[in-house]
Amino acid sequence: MTTVKEIRLKSRPQGLPSRDNFEMASVELAAPGPGEVQVKNLWMTVDPYMRGRMNDVKSYAPPFALGKAMDGGAIGEVTASNDPKFKAGDLVQSGFGWREGFNAPAAALQPLDPRGLPPQAFLGAAGMPGLTAYAGLLKIAALKDGDVVFVSGAAGAVGSMVCQIAKAKGHKVIGSAGGADKVAFLKEIGVDHAIDYKAEKDLTAAILAGAPEGIDVYFDNVGGPHLEAALNAAKLFSRFAICGMISIYNATTPQPGPSNLALLIGKNIRMEGFIVSHHFDMMPKYIDELSGWVKAGKVKWTETIFEGIDKAPDAFLGLFSGENTGKMLVKLA
Amino acid sequence: MTTVKEIRLKSRPQGLPSRDNFEMASVELAAPGPGEVQVKNLWMTVDPYMRGRMNDVKSYAPPFALGKAMDGGAIGEVTASNDPKFKAGDLVQSGFGWREGFNAPAAALQPLDPRGLPPQAFLGAAGMPGLTAYAGLLKIAALKDGDVVFVSGAAGAVGSMVCQIAKAKGHKVIGSAGGADKVAFLKEIGVDHAIDYKAEKDLTAAILAGAPEGIDVYFDNVGGPHLEAALNAAKLFSRFAICGMISIYNATTPQPGPSNLALLIGKNIRMEGFIVSHHFDMMPKYIDELSGWVKAGKVKWTETIFEGIDKAPDAFLGLFSGENTGKMLVKLA
Repeated sequence: MTTVKEIRLKSRPQGLPSRDNFEMASVELAAPGPGEVQVKNLWMTVDPYMRGRMNDVKSYAPPFALGKAMDGGAIGEVTASNDPKFKAGDLVQSGFGWREGFNAPAAALQPLDPRGLPPQAFLGAAGMPGLTAYAGLLKIAALKDGDVVFVSGAAGAVGSMVCQIAKAKGHKVIGSAGGADKVAFLKEIGVDHAIDYKAEKDLTAAILAGAPEGIDVYFDNVGGPHLEAALNAAKLFSRFAICGMISIYNATTPQPGPSNLALLIGKNIRMEGFIVSHHFDMMPKYIDELSGWVKAGKVKWTETIFEGIDKAPDAFLGLFSGENTGKMLVKLA
Repeated sequence: MTTVKEIRLKSRPQGLPSRDNFEMASVELAAPGPGEVQVKNLWMTVDPYMRGRMNDVKSYAPPFALGKAMDGGAIGEVTASNDPKFKAGDLVQSGFGWREGFNAPAAALQPLDPRGLPPQAFLGAAGMPGLTAYAGLLKIAALKDGDVVFVSGAAGAVGSMVCQIAKAKGHKVIGSAGGADKVAFLKEIGVDHAIDYKAEKDLTAAILAGAPEGIDVYFDNVGGPHLEAALNAAKLFSRFAICGMISIYNATTPQPGPSNLALLIGKNIRMEGFIVSHHFDMMPKYIDELSGWVKAGKVKWTETIFEGIDKAPDAFLGLFSGENTGKMLVKLA
């Protein structure tokens, strides 16, 4: 028997979640049964979309159950296997995050070939956040030559990849993030015009300072005033990929949308929401392109790491106060 | 010399325009000079987009000038011609509305072949409003087999054509309009589920009553609460053609957008604004299809007619109080 700790949803938050909404519990793992594999998690991800899953509301991802372990992406190492497809020492990717280890049917695990990358990259730049950036930019926003790209949440896991993919493809990029450190990071990854939105009174003017003729593409991670400013700064026939609206995820009352939505009409703007799971078919192509960019030094990434399962709630809560630059991760072993 | 009356913009409205913003003047027309044609207008159009042109704001259509005749679509008859391309009695289409007659260079006029339709149809069903419906539905919303279509402002010039084009193509159509007479008209033109929005407390529920599984396409003529309800009722991968937002054209303060815009993400909704002038290339194909539908009795239209140039401001103002069913027109001769 092995004892592992896991994080459970204790109560559903109203507004901003707190540590009180989580509880840690210990679980005994028996040896894996027939067809099962035992995994020790090395890394788990925390992502803004998990906030929605804390509500008891039907959405594209099912709500977390009260009193049960939460779940989400994780990278682990097989410690014992009762299935021929896996052996001890294999790296695997799974949806069994928020816990130190688990038993699961072999079919619920994906073998992970890190291809020379650190394994946790597959929770970030080489995983869902990276593919989100790639699909949103190329497919949803239909990026084309000469487009000027504006990205909000630009220092985050998705945003920082949007910036770099756009730069790798030769575009001018305007990025917005909160605070001087993040702005410094944006400059480091090649963003042409970095905005510290916390220091700006007029976001529209801040965008236009970097893109005097306006923007062709807006990649939205935050919603709220950023979306309104992007509409103001948008060119004719611009395209908005709506990926996230972190500014309103914790709202307890309905938050009004942008007051300038009628600009969609005169500017012929296309605004399209998306979630990455409808674009998994693009993953092989993305990983190919990404490998080339990494080798050419065109794309790099940074991580904000919390250590230990007991810190997982803090890592998650930190997403909403902007504590992460790049991918927020929890190192479990 | 011929004396004609014209309507000029006297002052720019704050909020809802009134008759005081207009003034009527008499103008003497000399005989047409070389290359010029003299036209007596038979019909002129009033359209919601003209409200934006009363403001001194740069937009897709230039603002009306103070103290000058307003302009817009008109159908007229040539009364005298000093150009070989036109002769007295010819029907012409022009942008010289809001006046009883005018002299203009031949190049500024389009000959009109009514093809068996009443000439004023080319200001409505067979003109810009009709093409707006056609392009918005087929190109912007990318209508496809089986789509359930929701239309706001459904009894208006554009909306009533959206309903009928969708019906002619075999779709289920939910239409919203204000008042029992308009609802009766919607039923007459084949709308499957007609909503009197003035009598509904819960617009989302009203839409879902007609489309229990939700809507695939929303054709927005009004914005505001209709847009919010359409987002609530939208299916995964639905498409919104944003054509107009008459509910906010007269607002004097910024009107908040829908509070549920984050639904774009989970539902992967595409929302695209458009103006018809970018889709004039579709006109020949539209007129072909329209002729077929008219012959087959699948499409008809109705008009709300004000008579005389002095009534043109009333016709225009009536657009904002919903006085029109179908196309609002002014008969000038």
